[in-house]
Amino acid sequence: MRGATAWSSPIDPMAAEFQVPVYFDYLATFSWALSGAIVALRKRCDIVGVFVLALLTSVGGSILRDGIFLQRTPPVLTDPVYLPLITLATLLIALLHQHIIHLQVVDKLVSTIDAIGTPAFAVVGMQLALDAGIPLPGVILVGAVSSVGGGVLRDVIVREIPFILQAGQFFALVVLLACIVFLVLTLALQVATVHAAWATIGLFFVVRTLTIRYNWQTRPLLRDEDH
Amino acid sequence: MRGATAWSSPIDPMAAEFQVPVYFDYLATFSWALSGAIVALRKRCDIVGVFVLALLTSVGGSILRDGIFLQRTPPVLTDPVYLPLITLATLLIALLHQHIIHLQVVDKLVSTIDAIGTPAFAVVGMQLALDAGIPLPGVILVGAVSSVGGGVLRDVIVREIPFILQAGQFFALVVLLACIVFLVLTLALQVATVHAAWATIGLFFVVRTLTIRYNWQTRPLLRDEDH
Amino acid sequence: MRGATAWSSPIDPMAAEFQVPVYFDYLATFSWALSGAIVALRKRCDIVGVFVLALLTSVGGSILRDGIFLQRTPPVLTDPVYLPLITLATLLIALLHQHIIHLQVVDKLVSTIDAIGTPAFAVVGMQLALDAGIPLPGVILVGAVSSVGGGVLRDVIVREIPFILQAGQFFALVVLLACIVFLVLTLALQVATVHAAWATIGLFFVVRTLTIRYNWQTRPLLRDEDH
Repeated sequence: MRGATAWSSPIDPMAAEFQVPVYFDYLATFSWALSGAIVALRKRCDIVGVFVLALLTSVGGSILRDGIFLQRTPPVLTDPVYLPLITLATLLIALLHQHIIHLQVVDKLVSTIDAIGTPAFAVVGMQLALDAGIPLPGVILVGAVSSVGGGVLRDVIVREIPFILQAGQFFALVVLLACIVFLVLTLALQVATVHAAWATIGLFFVVRTLTIRYNWQTRPLLRDEDH
Repeated sequence: MRGATAWSSPIDPMAAEFQVPVYFDYLATFSWALSGAIVALRKRCDIVGVFVLALLTSVGGSILRDGIFLQRTPPVLTDPVYLPLITLATLLIALLHQHIIHLQVVDKLVSTIDAIGTPAFAVVGMQLALDAGIPLPGVILVGAVSSVGGGVLRDVIVREIPFILQAGQFFALVVLLACIVFLVLTLALQVATVHAAWATIGLFFVVRTLTIRYNWQTRPLLRDEDH
Repeated sequence: MRGATAWSSPIDPMAAEFQVPVYFDYLATFSWALSGAIVALRKRCDIVGVFVLALLTSVGGSILRDGIFLQRTPPVLTDPVYLPLITLATLLIALLHQHIIHLQVVDKLVSTIDAIGTPAFAVVGMQLALDAGIPLPGVILVGAVSSVGGGVLRDVIVREIPFILQAGQFFALVVLLACIVFLVLTLALQVATVHAAWATIGLFFVVRTLTIRYNWQTRPLLRDEDH
């Protein structure tokens, strides 16, 4: 465990973002903002609703991670890039909405970028938790909240049962696997953090793509005949 | 940008409340508590539910603002006036419920006070964000969360799609306009903060009243014939 | 009021847990995790959903208490016991699900332990708030949020109107009573904290058991004939 002193002094955000390059975080944010905006279109929101859902989906995870769990000011406030980026995604969807709503290639593009963005958010979150001296089970929780938190907030606010609670395609278990792989690589095998991050992202991308391709499903613990 | 040192030292709550008089914040809180309590009545809540909804509606915005975004202890805990005030609003609604539920003048009174309270919450929030050294896009976000956060929490907890996501009367865009006007007045034109605050509140009140009077509407980006 | 200096220095978590023994907090957490997992089974969740709901139900209250209200890192991150405990509850329910879903004794056992766990969470929360120098109305709010917050989050995420808003069996008012009794005992009557805690827990348990036994009900303020 590193950085026990990080408890008392403010954590340097650069320390973690240096290891997973920051443009990566921006790319993931932009991608999730697009996917949130598309959900809002389908829910018949106006332009404000599209922005709010793009915002919640893309930075909701880091708001929960920092504002509630790690007790830091969320980067959406301190880094002036995020809000213009989310505004850009909102305007893009607003302008193109009639063209993209029927295009399957858009959904495919977004889900591909998300398959990279999800483990990227997890790795950044775990890094920050390790730097804060959190014990390992907590580090995994912070990684998971960082990567799926935005999607859960989006679902709650549009009144759907969060995808994470529903039986369906494997997703959260792949996030968990990715978190554990990252920790084994960095802490047990002493792999350099930046290599471990890329390996984690690659692994998640491959498993997630296979899951979508072959439609691997989880099932409810309690089936209807049980009750 | 002011107060770069505010990051490390606890923010003096008086600094901001001095500029927008504190009784104003109390009036807005009391008004939102009444409006939350009336929603709870209509949802067939008991006395506890009326109190909880009055609480969430009136101080939910400042809880999100301070607890999550600005990393301060929410004033509902540190200022002993808020909870008795919300309790008073709850008891008032509980006592008068049979008389007021049919009175249109009550709705009109509450919506008038809200048209003052909404920009007041926004101005106080932006002030605190500026004092904390947050960059401008983040300051606007904090202002918006402060003013509409309570209403969003109220809608989520009673299982309605938050008003902010729905096409309908202009509201969030007027909040955004008010936030930008306040920042232009104080930062670009160097107007004294207290004058800028009152100008912002006045502007919001006028535009909001016109919106209600002429029922100016936003519309969903995606109309039904598009899909 | 004690511990005014606690505002600036990090609060020692042991200070409070020493007074209400920590195994008690673990027992309450395990019990609430079981009850959350059983709700998830009935909602047809997969194993991930069962874990997520067990987590939210059991530590949701302390996450709100510390992450938002008291500005401390939530203990689910810093104390490495909670997550394994919640995982254990999840696995137990997953293994036994076909056997327990029909057993009334399970519901009864869980509701009995909850009748101890609820005031235990309230007492720990109030202790931490007192240590942080929060004024009395705020202390009661923190106690109430600590004890019912997990259940409210669980209801919101599975899209039910939170139990706390609905007319039904007396619950929140008994929590409030317990909070006030604890504060009167410790602050006015100078009873030793550990004795006051046990008296509060005992009182809540008795009143709650009577409420269930005789089905004491609250009623909506506004009845259908009123409207």
